[in-house]
Amino acid sequence: MPKKTLKVAVLGLGTVGSGVPVILQEQKDKIEQIIGMEFIITKALVRDVKTKKELAQKYNIKLVLDIKEIVQDPEVDVVVELIGGIKLARDFIKEALNARKHVVSANKDLVATYAEELITLAKAQSVNFYYEAAVAGGVPILRTLSSSLNADGICEVLGIVNGTTNYMLTQMSQEGKTYDEALTSAQELGFAEADPTNDVDGIDAAYKMVILTAFAYGMKISLDSVEKQGIRALQSQDVKNANLLGYVFKLIGCSRKQKAGVDVSVAPALVSKSHLLANVHHEMNAIFVKSAGIGESMYYGLGAGSLPTATSVVSDLVEIAKNISQKKIGVPFNTYETATKFAEDTQIFDKYYFNIELHSKKGNFDQLKDLFAKAQVKIKQTIDQGTQVLVLTYKISKEKKNKILKMIVDESSFELSSVYRVFD
Amino acid sequence: MPKKTLKVAVLGLGTVGSGVPVILQEQKDKIEQIIGMEFIITKALVRDVKTKKELAQKYNIKLVLDIKEIVQDPEVDVVVELIGGIKLARDFIKEALNARKHVVSANKDLVATYAEELITLAKAQSVNFYYEAAVAGGVPILRTLSSSLNADGICEVLGIVNGTTNYMLTQMSQEGKTYDEALTSAQELGFAEADPTNDVDGIDAAYKMVILTAFAYGMKISLDSVEKQGIRALQSQDVKNANLLGYVFKLIGCSRKQKAGVDVSVAPALVSKSHLLANVHHEMNAIFVKSAGIGESMYYGLGAGSLPTATSVVSDLVEIAKNISQKKIGVPFNTYETATKFAEDTQIFDKYYFNIELHSKKGNFDQLKDLFAKAQVKIKQTIDQGTQVLVLTYKISKEKKNKILKMIVDESSFELSSVYRVFD
Repeated sequence: MPKKTLKVAVLGLGTVGSGVPVILQEQKDKIEQIIGMEFIITKALVRDVKTKKELAQKYNIKLVLDIKEIVQDPEVDVVVELIGGIKLARDFIKEALNARKHVVSANKDLVATYAEELITLAKAQSVNFYYEAAVAGGVPILRTLSSSLNADGICEVLGIVNGTTNYMLTQMSQEGKTYDEALTSAQELGFAEADPTNDVDGIDAAYKMVILTAFAYGMKISLDSVEKQGIRALQSQDVKNANLLGYVFKLIGCSRKQKAGVDVSVAPALVSKSHLLANVHHEMNAIFVKSAGIGESMYYGLGAGSLPTATSVVSDLVEIAKNISQKKIGVPFNTYETATKFAEDTQIFDKYYFNIELHSKKGNFDQLKDLFAKAQVKIKQTIDQGTQVLVLTYKISKEKKNKILKMIVDESSFELSSVYRVFD
Repeated sequence: MPKKTLKVAVLGLGTVGSGVPVILQEQKDKIEQIIGMEFIITKALVRDVKTKKELAQKYNIKLVLDIKEIVQDPEVDVVVELIGGIKLARDFIKEALNARKHVVSANKDLVATYAEELITLAKAQSVNFYYEAAVAGGVPILRTLSSSLNADGICEVLGIVNGTTNYMLTQMSQEGKTYDEALTSAQELGFAEADPTNDVDGIDAAYKMVILTAFAYGMKISLDSVEKQGIRALQSQDVKNANLLGYVFKLIGCSRKQKAGVDVSVAPALVSKSHLLANVHHEMNAIFVKSAGIGESMYYGLGAGSLPTATSVVSDLVEIAKNISQKKIGVPFNTYETATKFAEDTQIFDKYYFNIELHSKKGNFDQLKDLFAKAQVKIKQTIDQGTQVLVLTYKISKEKKNKILKMIVDESSFELSSVYRVFD
């Protein structure tokens, strides 16, 4: 007789953790109809029993303070890790996998850093380790890449994968706010933490690009290999300039694959207003994919929040339940693997926006043009704003971009205000 | 020892059929790495051997004229139906399922009409029947609804699911073309057929909404229960008016679920320019989903074309291969089922745009307002264009909309030019 109840233990009852019992209860009938089983959250690991008492009583969950009460409980089938952070979460997940529990996690830092170890362990133990919620919360991008796009050759993944910075950039673009004003507004709304480093410096987005790169190209890269630039230094003037030129600033996670290899980066960039990503506003997330077969596709939704993220967690639970009922064992979330290879700077091509200050107006503009010509950088458009000159280039290699950058810095008549990539 | 080769027979080598061998060859390495098997197209059913000879030779496919050579061939594992139409396709698929072949189809008309029969047969024969490509070609919407959104309560699916009409509407909005000019342009580019009825009258979109309704709510509805209005009667003046008011015309497939039941329709509608669907241009497709957990999400891509559609077909093949290697048998594509229930006209609420002609200017505008007041239809905005008056309403029931429509028609001083739904 097939199993009729799957017992779930949740590690952490914070924002996402407290959403999981809500979703399981709200979608109880649908889930039971689809998988022919029901989920019961039997236990939750918390740091403080008192503050979670009410929630626990409402959903009949036993609160525990020791992970052993979960991993040593033979009744627990699935462990859902939602405590965040790396060290403890890794230990707990390993204990759970070693005890042959299926594991669901929403922990991007952990998955980006220790996926290989945990996936190998899960496989050895013939259990599932799923983490759809680790990238872009409610957007079902990982399962889409690992199933529907299995048959396609992906060459580019452009992601707005950090809601905090997208909210801030929308405030800067649409409301004319400065970076500081936008940050305060984000903090007031709970979109940004008191220490916003992870979000505004692009670290959060970079973790997600590591995971997206693994799913898109089967390549394992580390956080260090992602070139990171945050939005902290973004000037209101550049936001205005972008608007003038028909662009919007977005923090773009970019993972591209050529024959030569991949390049993965996170940086603010000018996105053409006619690009669908330019219309992804506020705290929304979107992942834009280019591939050989489908061409262009995009996946849009909320990247964070209690219910969206909890919904992705529960979708993993449902997949695990399906696997159990169909006697599939230890199927990894992503089975695509190829050798990791990075493209060189001479092989990476982009369009750029330069904002350059001229120290004395007279003659310098021509001198600047000469510099670009000398570096063999083809200019598409210049805008002369008096002592400030904006230069939009055609596609040039990263090597050439660095060359012209150095030339500008070395030349005493100019000062580089900013340089950003341009996506048309 | 697990099977290492899956033999595929294709019915029809037209636009999509000729794309399947291309995708299988281009993504050969990736697919084999992921599933540990390879696909070989051994046979293709065609009407005329001569015209397909070159393609067949290139990919080493044996062309056959009789379906028996495929369904009676014990070597064939999967049959891919790409001949289109209903009667013959249905017969062939039934023969294939009866012979215990897995079946992949891209045939929306067939799936929308005979899904139940074919799904039941596939289940009884312990084989798979998948059809991701039947809705929105390259957009992986069906698998997303049946896996990732399994754990979510969907309440609205808004789809731009017909590329031909979206191309035409883009031409009308952006280039100021008339309906006839847009149709000619679509025909010249091969986006529209000589007889464009299926596209421009909303029938193609309605078939897709039948399938989306089954996946979103588990409800089986027939094509007849979809209220259909095409774009044939859409006037350039209304397209211009919409633009003035901050809207864009889109052919919107709308499937909504309330407690009272579902309502499913296809009709041109005014979509607010701030809505992401308004930015889906040219021949692109997109499906916008509202759900309890995730909130708003959108899935965007090409809805037709050889390679996008063939990619979705091959993604079904990959899923079938995974099922075979994991010994899963006869898992339906969509396992969600609930009783079908339709909402009444008093339970369906929308905002509307009315374009009304006043037969003599004097006094009639007030008279018109009185009429709306009498029908208890709250007006949000009116625009007086001389003898033409535009009225935007707040949300009203479909019953009230029909009531005011009848009142306008009965009143000799007015003539109704058009009425459309409005999506903000």
